[in-house]
Amino acid sequence: MNFNITRAAHIEYRVTDLERARHFYVHVLGFIQIDQDQERLYLGGLEEREHHGLALCKAEAPGVTHLAFRVASPQDLYSLEALYAENGCQTRWIPEGFEKGQGKALRVQDVTGLPLEFYHRMERRDWLLQRFDRYRGANVMRLDHFNCQVPQVQAGYDWFTRSLGFYCSELTLTEDDPPSLWAAWLHRKQNVHDIALMNGIGPRLHHAGFWLANQDSVLRACDVLAASGYADSIERGPGRHGISNAFFVYLRDPDGNRIELYTNDYIIPDADWEPIRWNINDPRRATFWGHKPPASWFDEASLVESVLTGELLPTSPPPLRDRPEFVT
Amino acid sequence: MNFNITRAAHIEYRVTDLERARHFYVHVLGFIQIDQDQERLYLGGLEEREHHGLALCKAEAPGVTHLAFRVASPQDLYSLEALYAENGCQTRWIPEGFEKGQGKALRVQDVTGLPLEFYHRMERRDWLLQRFDRYRGANVMRLDHFNCQVPQVQAGYDWFTRSLGFYCSELTLTEDDPPSLWAAWLHRKQNVHDIALMNGIGPRLHHAGFWLANQDSVLRACDVLAASGYADSIERGPGRHGISNAFFVYLRDPDGNRIELYTNDYIIPDADWEPIRWNINDPRRATFWGHKPPASWFDEASLVESVLTGELLPTSPPPLRDRPEFVT
Amino acid sequence: MNFNITRAAHIEYRVTDLERARHFYVHVLGFIQIDQDQERLYLGGLEEREHHGLALCKAEAPGVTHLAFRVASPQDLYSLEALYAENGCQTRWIPEGFEKGQGKALRVQDVTGLPLEFYHRMERRDWLLQRFDRYRGANVMRLDHFNCQVPQVQAGYDWFTRSLGFYCSELTLTEDDPPSLWAAWLHRKQNVHDIALMNGIGPRLHHAGFWLANQDSVLRACDVLAASGYADSIERGPGRHGISNAFFVYLRDPDGNRIELYTNDYIIPDADWEPIRWNINDPRRATFWGHKPPASWFDEASLVESVLTGELLPTSPPPLRDRPEFVT
Amino acid sequence: MNFNITRAAHIEYRVTDLERARHFYVHVLGFIQIDQDQERLYLGGLEEREHHGLALCKAEAPGVTHLAFRVASPQDLYSLEALYAENGCQTRWIPEGFEKGQGKALRVQDVTGLPLEFYHRMERRDWLLQRFDRYRGANVMRLDHFNCQVPQVQAGYDWFTRSLGFYCSELTLTEDDPPSLWAAWLHRKQNVHDIALMNGIGPRLHHAGFWLANQDSVLRACDVLAASGYADSIERGPGRHGISNAFFVYLRDPDGNRIELYTNDYIIPDADWEPIRWNINDPRRATFWGHKPPASWFDEASLVESVLTGELLPTSPPPLRDRPEFVT
Repeated sequence: MNFNITRAAHIEYRVTDLERARHFYVHVLGFIQIDQDQERLYLGGLEEREHHGLALCKAEAPGVTHLAFRVASPQDLYSLEALYAENGCQTRWIPEGFEKGQGKALRVQDVTGLPLEFYHRMERRDWLLQRFDRYRGANVMRLDHFNCQVPQVQAGYDWFTRSLGFYCSELTLTEDDPPSLWAAWLHRKQNVHDIALMNGIGPRLHHAGFWLANQDSVLRACDVLAASGYADSIERGPGRHGISNAFFVYLRDPDGNRIELYTNDYIIPDADWEPIRWNINDPRRATFWGHKPPASWFDEASLVESVLTGELLPTSPPPLRDRPEFVT
Repeated sequence: MNFNITRAAHIEYRVTDLERARHFYVHVLGFIQIDQDQERLYLGGLEEREHHGLALCKAEAPGVTHLAFRVASPQDLYSLEALYAENGCQTRWIPEGFEKGQGKALRVQDVTGLPLEFYHRMERRDWLLQRFDRYRGANVMRLDHFNCQVPQVQAGYDWFTRSLGFYCSELTLTEDDPPSLWAAWLHRKQNVHDIALMNGIGPRLHHAGFWLANQDSVLRACDVLAASGYADSIERGPGRHGISNAFFVYLRDPDGNRIELYTNDYIIPDADWEPIRWNINDPRRATFWGHKPPASWFDEASLVESVLTGELLPTSPPPLRDRPEFVT
Repeated sequence: MNFNITRAAHIEYRVTDLERARHFYVHVLGFIQIDQDQERLYLGGLEEREHHGLALCKAEAPGVTHLAFRVASPQDLYSLEALYAENGCQTRWIPEGFEKGQGKALRVQDVTGLPLEFYHRMERRDWLLQRFDRYRGANVMRLDHFNCQVPQVQAGYDWFTRSLGFYCSELTLTEDDPPSLWAAWLHRKQNVHDIALMNGIGPRLHHAGFWLANQDSVLRACDVLAASGYADSIERGPGRHGISNAFFVYLRDPDGNRIELYTNDYIIPDADWEPIRWNINDPRRATFWGHKPPASWFDEASLVESVLTGELLPTSPPPLRDRPEFVT
Repeated sequence: MNFNITRAAHIEYRVTDLERARHFYVHVLGFIQIDQDQERLYLGGLEEREHHGLALCKAEAPGVTHLAFRVASPQDLYSLEALYAENGCQTRWIPEGFEKGQGKALRVQDVTGLPLEFYHRMERRDWLLQRFDRYRGANVMRLDHFNCQVPQVQAGYDWFTRSLGFYCSELTLTEDDPPSLWAAWLHRKQNVHDIALMNGIGPRLHHAGFWLANQDSVLRACDVLAASGYADSIERGPGRHGISNAFFVYLRDPDGNRIELYTNDYIIPDADWEPIRWNINDPRRATFWGHKPPASWFDEASLVESVLTGELLPTSPPPLRDRPEFVT
């Protein structure tokens, strides 16, 4: 490959009320507000050094405008443009400064239908890792990954691993003979994932995962949310995933967009890591302690934008059953 | 009162297989095995200084033989014998050494029907609080309280507070006009409870609560249970109660007896503490984060023994609804 | 005894700059500011239900105006007045409202020379235990105890245990033959101490101890202090005491007054608890992990006021060596 | 570069008594014993998937036989052999199985004098990350890095960054004009370091760093060590480094070899990370909370072997002062 995607870097959610979203993300959960303009809030985590890890964009309806990956050099953007053009995917250049702090970027409607953004340059900001006086709420450290529902996981897996250079850390198979690929956790940086593809109605963004430094911060998030009147935003967990070992909680923001706050995954410094394999119907896969996810966790997800028109894209159902047998 | 009940001290569960129970309590959860004979295992926590905090007794069917409270002096036992006799309750003396390490004790069939034991003398053992090398599993520190289902909570409350000297820390009321007392948390030692009475089919022991030193030990219990093949024993939680502020998990032992592992309640050094009042249908009461308890948590509990015959006692249904409206 | 002292309740420090003290205690450490007037700030912890647990009083020089204990009834104040008068100690009535929120109170110059206050009535305030959104800094839960240096520990021990009704949880002895009492941990509420008496130049207040709910809050206090420019305020720890099992850190406020933030002590619900005995030169007593306290920890402490004149009292040296052999 | 060093992988310490070392590392600290033969114990952490992360080798005197790095392919070993030969460094091939579970490996006496090993193949073992029932003591997850004292840090830095492909995460400079490089933290995997070079008498191994999943495990290590009679093994900490943000404790094994147990460093997925720069005399660099390291932390370190003769190598003093001004 003549490009190097280095990591999941930020996400932009569509929200219908910026002030309501600010209260949830900044005042309650403790995301750092970095910047804003009339249309967007730019937020960040305590470990991040770049301008933003989460953007919130005013819109008529919830959803996702784009999922951003950083690349290792400016030239990589042109290589990616060529690759996507060869594969018949729509692309669009985003001028420097369109997103505050960010250089020229490429948006593409990926083979999976997901609206991806690639960029290289973004402003650095003062590092807050040791500004413990500014830790609040969930003590959010950094954006870690995107989890997406797509109808064709095998095709998405092939594309991401063969054409974009992603590695697979863990995967889930159906009980069919031969088994079908039901979900895959894929990474470029050296941990469990930058993007996961799960079988389901799609293309949709299931959640963005934000990393916390410890289990207490996950519990503290629940306590602070409940004390602030947001108990209803807690959709699933806290619990431990068998997959990835994450200690997690899933939240729905006031617009219904889903985020995961988690800790306790692991590093993968070896390129020849042998993926961990799970059976879709092994309950420990979903929650190591045996808890069943609620049906909403499979049914609901965020629609994604067309990178050309900004319209929310229609979705298709998957050919495979979209949830384990133990979830009804 | 001419006696002084000082605290909930130990419980004896009936189990059908001592080795299976030993594996669950000692090998997995890390209770300390103190002693044993052919019929019983005597277990303890890391903060306890007396011989045992939990006894397991071989029996044909699960259940509870007795709930033990310590009293401040040997004379208190005779005062309690007289009080119970006056109130038409069965009493029975247990000779010294019948329970290993314990002096002469009084068992009574309480006004609520519960089989209580009162004792003063019990052997001290080496303190393990700073034997951190012996911490295992859930790092269980000490027995804290009993939670019981009874059909007549108001009558039980009156008896425990007026005749036995208990104080009330928190209580739950129905939405009737006037409200009825649905549950009460009652204490002698200076924390939230030594015994709670909840409206339900009874007399039954709902659970014994064991105190852990921190939230991580609760999570560790879940991890170790799941890694040891006991994920099914996790019935409810981890979560935070509104009532008592406890961060808790409820487990079912291999015989179905229920224990709570918890931390984060508070001290009550003031006798004029004003009880915290909750509405039965406030979801934060049950779980501060909004999670609903499973129906089994209301339906199932341990039968208790007759202190005279050792037979498990029949139960009666409560006149009030036995669960919040949000649990079906 | 015809009175019932229930617990250590609050302390009032003299500070030379109220704004500077507010920054340290409220802004950085997260004490809740309850009230203020021109001379005093009234602060509290998250678990406390009464008006204040810590008062800061503007003064020319640092020190302590009084150490307050709550009593079980208003009548107890008169019984204590009589007791102190019989023992030749100065007493003084403090009118209702002199301390905001507090009823009529009795101040005495104790037999040890310490300025004690006894009160029964104090305003309740909204409980913050579950206002997790207001947790900040060290997440301070409640005042727990006072630790005082006095030249005559044995005499102080006799007075507190025989005349005031305190129980002893742990004690430290010299290596003399017979050993002398070097320090004693004394309690009325059911945990390790409400007051400790240590051999040293006195009467002085060594520190007031505030209880935190977990070890992470102790570490977080250090992180937040250092990030806020207060690294110099960290005098000793974090570490674990052998005595009391406390996981602790000792801080010096901007005036040099010392506080301990700690967790992990234990409950003592039994009046016949057998005190734990330590040798003064056992290094595990001071720090279980073997760290030596700095000399300042023995040399420096807060002078205390005359309850009659408000002057800081002169001190006397102790006849026994004032520190372990391993501290030079 | 025509090779790819992927990460620090294992270390082999010389110990004079294998049973004594086993007690310390396995029984107390909870390292997993993977394998053994008459000369060596092979130990591992809970997150590691390869055969061993720590080997202990019977020897006449303490020290280090080699520091091992994994490479991405077998061919890389030959490229490294050529590179070292060109630079006049001794090399030696270690046959497959000489270290249990390991394929053919290359040992070199590095330009810095350090005995490095490079290997590609090592047996996988069952993963213990979710075998929470086997977590013990310090819950050691994995070897993370080596910290070495060398007299010529600048030369070592140039070699590791220019010839071996390491990136710099943080560095320490003297106050000279122009400043000299006093220490550098260098990495191949995506976190703060695989190897650090510190100015000092060398070549010596200062410590191997093992990663724990949380702060509680660091504190638990201290508690378990002290409870097991190893309080003297705690040399420095627990505390937080300014450098790397690590929450750490330094231990000395029964032979005096030093290990660090730590958590809370951060990931570096961007190759264009701008190194954090520290002044040698900034006390926050060493300990963010202001604590001074003991002199032993600078004076004492492990001698390293000649890869050809197995003799411990002589050392040279550094031209620069070997510690901050605040350490005497």
